Amino acid sequence: MRQFLKLLPMALVIVASACENRTQPDNNPPQTEKDPVFSKGEKVTNDNFIGNVWLNNLVQADSSNQNAVGSVTFEPGARTKWHSHPAGQIILALDGVGYYQEKGKEKVIIRKGEVVKCPLDVPHWHGASADTAFVQVAITGREKGETVWLDAVTDEEYHK
Amino acid sequence: MRQFLKLLPMALVIVASACENRTQPDNNPPQTEKDPVFSKGEKVTNDNFIGNVWLNNLVQADSSNQNAVGSVTFEPGARTKWHSHPAGQIILALDGVGYYQEKGKEKVIIRKGEVVKCPLDVPHWHGASADTAFVQVAITGREKGETVWLDAVTDEEYHK
Repeated sequence: MRQFLKLLPMALVIVASACENRTQPDNNPPQTEKDPVFSKGEKVTNDNFIGNVWLNNLVQADSSNQNAVGSVTFEPGARTKWHSHPAGQIILALDGVGYYQEKGKEKVIIRKGEVVKCPLDVPHWHGASADTAFVQVAITGREKGETVWLDAVTDEEYHK
Repeated sequence: MRQFLKLLPMALVIVASACENRTQPDNNPPQTEKDPVFSKGEKVTNDNFIGNVWLNNLVQADSSNQNAVGSVTFEPGARTKWHSHPAGQIILALDGVGYYQEKGKEKVIIRKGEVVKCPLDVPHWHGASADTAFVQVAITGREKGETVWLDAVTDEEYHK
């Protein structure tokens, strides 16, 4: 019994600390949701993007509905080239923190829940912020033609 | 000491159960994410919907981009009337469990991460499942006119 008595405080500590371990905040929280709405899709391998980017093509344009919809996941620092859309684009920020810039304007920060409407034919770029990944849904009309890809976004432009 | 000994097992049980209480599943878990991508917006008061529905108008159609985009939150049992869209509609399931049915077809269950493309002018309805709320983004082209609202979805149709 004495032996048992000696061990009991230790047992209490073990039970209590196990409990704490299960409820302490994670020291390395993910930068975006653990359970994203859409799977990341395929890694983008074309050179219209810089850095690590994944694309999940959710909806293809067809003859009756010419919107293409895709979920795009950018790792921190990843971004598109400068580009424009003949029929414009709508960006829905699903998660994380991103950057968006139109030619001749300041770069803006976009966060989960925010929406950007890119005007027709206006050069712009978007991507993740330098520190945090970014997940967006892009809604792109194809009725007036394909995306026009332009120059890469330099590090100076990206960080400005 | 004997008194202490008698109380110790109870103390162990209390510590362990407190721990359990913190890690057991919540008896009243939220039916959808605690931190939704978009705020719920305004409660819908028109009679094109049955049950409790909220609408957050994210993007208005304009002359250059005629897509309207809205986030719609349906409480369990809530749904649209039968309706059709002259330019079709794309539904992105953001959270929860919903129902979608086109006229003459079986009702289908749609879950977070799934996408539905509603054809032009085809009567259909959508909403939450009977037990779980549903959050969707609806992308609706306005270039061919407004939504055509039809009959209410009866309980028999809804539960079938």
